[in-house]
Amino acid sequence: MDKARRTLLKIGTGLALSSAVITRAGATPAAIKVPVEPGPAGNALRLVTYRHAAAEAPRLGAVTAQGMVIDLGATARDLGMTLAFDPANMVSLITAGPDAIAQARRCAASGRPHASLDNVRLLAPIPVPARNVYAVGWNYLEHFGESLTAKQAALPKHPVFFTKGTHTINGPFDPIPFNPSVSVKIDWEGELAVIIGKRGYNIAEADAMQYVFGYAVINDTTARDMQVDHGGQWFKGKSLDGHGPIGPWIIPASDIDYNNLQLTTRVNGVVKQQINTSQMYFKVPRIIAELSLGLTLEPGDIIATGTPSGIGAARNPPEFLKPGDVMETEIDRIGVIRNVIRQVTA
Amino acid sequence: MDKARRTLLKIGTGLALSSAVITRAGATPAAIKVPVEPGPAGNALRLVTYRHAAAEAPRLGAVTAQGMVIDLGATARDLGMTLAFDPANMVSLITAGPDAIAQARRCAASGRPHASLDNVRLLAPIPVPARNVYAVGWNYLEHFGESLTAKQAALPKHPVFFTKGTHTINGPFDPIPFNPSVSVKIDWEGELAVIIGKRGYNIAEADAMQYVFGYAVINDTTARDMQVDHGGQWFKGKSLDGHGPIGPWIIPASDIDYNNLQLTTRVNGVVKQQINTSQMYFKVPRIIAELSLGLTLEPGDIIATGTPSGIGAARNPPEFLKPGDVMETEIDRIGVIRNVIRQVTA
Repeated sequence: MDKARRTLLKIGTGLALSSAVITRAGATPAAIKVPVEPGPAGNALRLVTYRHAAAEAPRLGAVTAQGMVIDLGATARDLGMTLAFDPANMVSLITAGPDAIAQARRCAASGRPHASLDNVRLLAPIPVPARNVYAVGWNYLEHFGESLTAKQAALPKHPVFFTKGTHTINGPFDPIPFNPSVSVKIDWEGELAVIIGKRGYNIAEADAMQYVFGYAVINDTTARDMQVDHGGQWFKGKSLDGHGPIGPWIIPASDIDYNNLQLTTRVNGVVKQQINTSQMYFKVPRIIAELSLGLTLEPGDIIATGTPSGIGAARNPPEFLKPGDVMETEIDRIGVIRNVIRQVTA
Repeated sequence: MDKARRTLLKIGTGLALSSAVITRAGATPAAIKVPVEPGPAGNALRLVTYRHAAAEAPRLGAVTAQGMVIDLGATARDLGMTLAFDPANMVSLITAGPDAIAQARRCAASGRPHASLDNVRLLAPIPVPARNVYAVGWNYLEHFGESLTAKQAALPKHPVFFTKGTHTINGPFDPIPFNPSVSVKIDWEGELAVIIGKRGYNIAEADAMQYVFGYAVINDTTARDMQVDHGGQWFKGKSLDGHGPIGPWIIPASDIDYNNLQLTTRVNGVVKQQINTSQMYFKVPRIIAELSLGLTLEPGDIIATGTPSGIGAARNPPEFLKPGDVMETEIDRIGVIRNVIRQVTA
């Protein structure tokens, strides 16, 4: 691998446009499991960004418990409702806050389905974030233990923060590029994603939940060789294009208790990671308070809150993803994302 | 400090809008030194983003060797020239490539000055980058030595990469916020910034310079306590709002040899760091090749290429910036940025 990587550094691939990698091929699989009664009231709002046809611009929708996608923009027009947000832009909806959520609920409850999930392509809920994804390391104690030598393994006083590049963002059912010249140690990290709802700076723990817009499933897919090869800083190994699938939708914070959700990662149907989010070492309010200390958070910012034990690199023998593998990341009451590892030649 | 920080995590500051910190107060100082004959031909193009009046939208300009700012949009209209780019948006100019540079040169040579540097406010050349700033750690050997224990100090095989959040971007003459409840160990790191000119993925070292649009001066200002308090990952300590002043302008790659520039950091007029960029351990082509491996670079992406020895934390006794200090970062043939440390109460 290292030899191939060395060669690639020298010769490159001559690609000025990496369309093969950036374009998200593939359609939404036929059978997307919508959790039944995901919210306290059994009718949680599931906000998606989707395309009805390949050439279409992305639009916002709400997914019903029956797996139907309600087009928010079209439904609002039908209902004569003036939306508080741009129905093509999730960050616009997030920024508009409670009014926008209320309007989306009215559209979702209108009984005017636009299409079934089978017939649309779900994109990442926020396809182009305005900055890197914030990520927390070692936030479940068993994973902390599996990743550190005994000498280093004092309990952390502050959360570990790193970032994933914006091009890691990938659709919930889109393939993850696998280029053996770049890395052959691609690993899974299922995580709960927090979506920030409003601007904040030096946010107190006690106020932090007011800054949460909602939750999604994310996989902090990681090139383990690159993670360790670059002087101990994780950014490079965490930031390969497409190595951050997220979705399938955002569920508003009011509809779910983030602190009691079963998180499961499967590879080819085999459970690799499983934990309850109640086992987070640094809870969401603490993460937000620490992260926002001297650093302004913005609506639409994404925080991956850390992965539990069970990563491939810590197994004996180590396991890594290979072309054709199916990686599923599921959080109950939210949903599942499913990504095939696909070899690319670029 | 830690006690104040703990308290702040608990109580916060109740700021939903951190305008006190995000707003860049201050005007461009009267005496900005423009390097004489900075380019091979003595007429390097200096591309700025600036405001003529506080309420005005940012616009693009070119700065002459005499310190005059040519308004690119207005001059193009005067000359009947249809610009290949949006004269309010530096990334648009960068994306338009050589045609845009040629047009900017014609405007700059037109002899139609708009204002003197004294009467405008220079912003960061790219005020709102589309993703985090890429940064290289330990890229001058003496700094590598001063920052590591002997045990760890094997020479690196790959560059160290981390990122700075987008809100670190600060104007070349704007104050740097200092909040003693957040950190009292603010340190300087003068660096050469590389601005990427076109999209690339798996870029070969031999081709890498084709992907460079130009250069600027950046200071990778760092909260040392936070850098070490978060599990060894540097992101948090590198990402306080306003802790990445950049500018004063971008000079196109064709106008300068990046590999032979004197880089100097001064605090209150005292030289703290000084080196020639020829001493970089990983040269710009290698940095671009490694960074773009599996990761798409985009026009307008910013790479801070690492700092030399002389940081405050490595001094005996350690030195840190305090309110009122003036930090100057200068690269010959490019220019100087000058930032006052200003206490904020938020």
